[in-house]
Amino acid sequence: MPQTVRIALDAMGGDFGPKVTIAGAALALERRPGSQFRLFGDEAAIRAELDRHPRLAARAEVRHAPVSIRMDDKPSQALRAGRRVSSMWLAIEAVKKGEADVAVSAGNTGALMAMSKICLRTLARVDRPALACLWPTLRGQSVVLDVGASMGANATHLVDLAIMGAAMARVILGLERPSVGLLNVGTEEIKGIEEVKAASALLRDLALPGFDYQGFVEGDGIGKGAVDVVVTEGFTGNIALKTAEGTAAQIAAYLKQAMGGSLLAKLGYLLARSAFGELRAKMDTRGTNGGVFLGLQGIVIKSHGGADPVGFARAVEIGYEMAGSDLLNRIRDTVALAHRLEDRDGADPTSSPQEAAQ
Amino acid sequence: MPQTVRIALDAMGGDFGPKVTIAGAALALERRPGSQFRLFGDEAAIRAELDRHPRLAARAEVRHAPVSIRMDDKPSQALRAGRRVSSMWLAIEAVKKGEADVAVSAGNTGALMAMSKICLRTLARVDRPALACLWPTLRGQSVVLDVGASMGANATHLVDLAIMGAAMARVILGLERPSVGLLNVGTEEIKGIEEVKAASALLRDLALPGFDYQGFVEGDGIGKGAVDVVVTEGFTGNIALKTAEGTAAQIAAYLKQAMGGSLLAKLGYLLARSAFGELRAKMDTRGTNGGVFLGLQGIVIKSHGGADPVGFARAVEIGYEMAGSDLLNRIRDTVALAHRLEDRDGADPTSSPQEAAQ
Repeated sequence: MPQTVRIALDAMGGDFGPKVTIAGAALALERRPGSQFRLFGDEAAIRAELDRHPRLAARAEVRHAPVSIRMDDKPSQALRAGRRVSSMWLAIEAVKKGEADVAVSAGNTGALMAMSKICLRTLARVDRPALACLWPTLRGQSVVLDVGASMGANATHLVDLAIMGAAMARVILGLERPSVGLLNVGTEEIKGIEEVKAASALLRDLALPGFDYQGFVEGDGIGKGAVDVVVTEGFTGNIALKTAEGTAAQIAAYLKQAMGGSLLAKLGYLLARSAFGELRAKMDTRGTNGGVFLGLQGIVIKSHGGADPVGFARAVEIGYEMAGSDLLNRIRDTVALAHRLEDRDGADPTSSPQEAAQ
Repeated sequence: MPQTVRIALDAMGGDFGPKVTIAGAALALERRPGSQFRLFGDEAAIRAELDRHPRLAARAEVRHAPVSIRMDDKPSQALRAGRRVSSMWLAIEAVKKGEADVAVSAGNTGALMAMSKICLRTLARVDRPALACLWPTLRGQSVVLDVGASMGANATHLVDLAIMGAAMARVILGLERPSVGLLNVGTEEIKGIEEVKAASALLRDLALPGFDYQGFVEGDGIGKGAVDVVVTEGFTGNIALKTAEGTAAQIAAYLKQAMGGSLLAKLGYLLARSAFGELRAKMDTRGTNGGVFLGLQGIVIKSHGGADPVGFARAVEIGYEMAGSDLLNRIRDTVALAHRLEDRDGADPTSSPQEAAQ
């Protein structure tokens, strides 16, 4: 018997609404037969799509929501117009009420973040939530966080990010003791900004259970898969993620130009078609679609707004895996331990982590 | 008659020393016949290479330097061991003394930065130097700075970076009025960190001559060539640059794997060989090798340590172009103007840029 996971879906989120979210949920159900759905949004629009997916219909309840958050609404607008009445809010609230194990939305990131924070609140002693993503690497996949939930981070918040990212890597990548690195401008201990150096000293000092802290990693180490979990604050993480996406798009454009040029190139392309298919599969971001908001008292998954059903299904599956584990308790316990150790160390000037950082 | 530019070369810098730097200088001289060289380093090692390049020998003076900075020396070590006696220091000092128009080194970045700062000093009212690079884009090339000279930046320093990057774009990319953008996590005015928002308000307010400020640009906008000059502080800039390099290397590895797989793929690869050559040329970073230290009272060019003669020659050429222009005076004048306007605005509470930033 597969594990039952109750998934609250913001059916109206994303660039295409129910057309993609319902088809994506149907795909996810095929692969995760234990999924159960609550679909929030415009009832007529949802039912029209649901008619094409009888299996999903049998595992889903539809809950009408009168308001849909637009992709370009500012967080403040979204909250004003959508609190308690939008499909996005109601999906998150289902998690808060214990009626669902996870919420999934392809809606706008700022609104989803603001609503999640207000509705679910952060875990005890976690100041701010983070957005974590799966990053394809030459070794497989790594967890990278924060890719844009919170701007800036002090050493303590970076330690929290390490704990949360490691917990996610255990669940999603199935690693017993994931390796963790802090993103920096060099791998020597003297390099970088103060917060990152202090966080490095703290992580070495605390030697927390459940992951191996391996020091600094540079930007080009992410794609190499230098570590399983790459930790950075949200401004830098978001720029690194989008820069990588931009570079991949740029090279894909070069490749297309080059292969469309001469007759020989076109012929070569035809012969090597399956090899190009393989390459395309590796560059396909749909397999890693699904950002995870971490640090909240509940799990919320953010799909790319432009995802197709295959991509959206992957986001739903990530939600299934995250919710089916003991993730929140693990994070809560390890964060509590870290803060206890920090408090103890802070009270003992001979082993102050601040000193160790200098 | 080509313009004469006197180039001071740290012949010992980089992973390969004179083998690459002398061959690279010889290549650069072919393309820029106005170049004149002072070659600093171990005299015997330099002369041994110079014997193979008689044309370069005719345009070069050799200056013996007893010390070579190692690639893994820390800046403090490099300064202790190499001040006034190393090939790196003496090349920079030639610029300070007015004996050369530009210094070029493939030596270690931290040491080069520290020595340049101490020997040349920063321009009046520029707090800290920046490292700028050329970034290949779908539209051509863009200037990106700071890619790692200084960590963190307040709004005023970000404005200085915009001025310096625009001046470099005018010289190297030949643009009359380059477009300038601030790297951020979104393009809406409400997004991002305070320093970046305040810098954006300042740039709009000051409307400085010589470039068009176009607002925020996201990570994926760099490779698209969204603007000619991308401005960010050194921590984020370094991570963005290395992440892009890592992504390119990752895709190149995928491509190699895919094309080496089946017989058909190999055959296709052979047929499309010239198309792949074209692709390789576009992904070749040698054409953009050569970081420029900006904000100093003199021009210093940093080549990749691992560059081959073709790459090193490009760094020398960038030095030639930078030195052959009125770059330093232009930067000095525009920075002075910006600070005058900021001071005036600061004294007038009705038009305070701080207010405008909120």
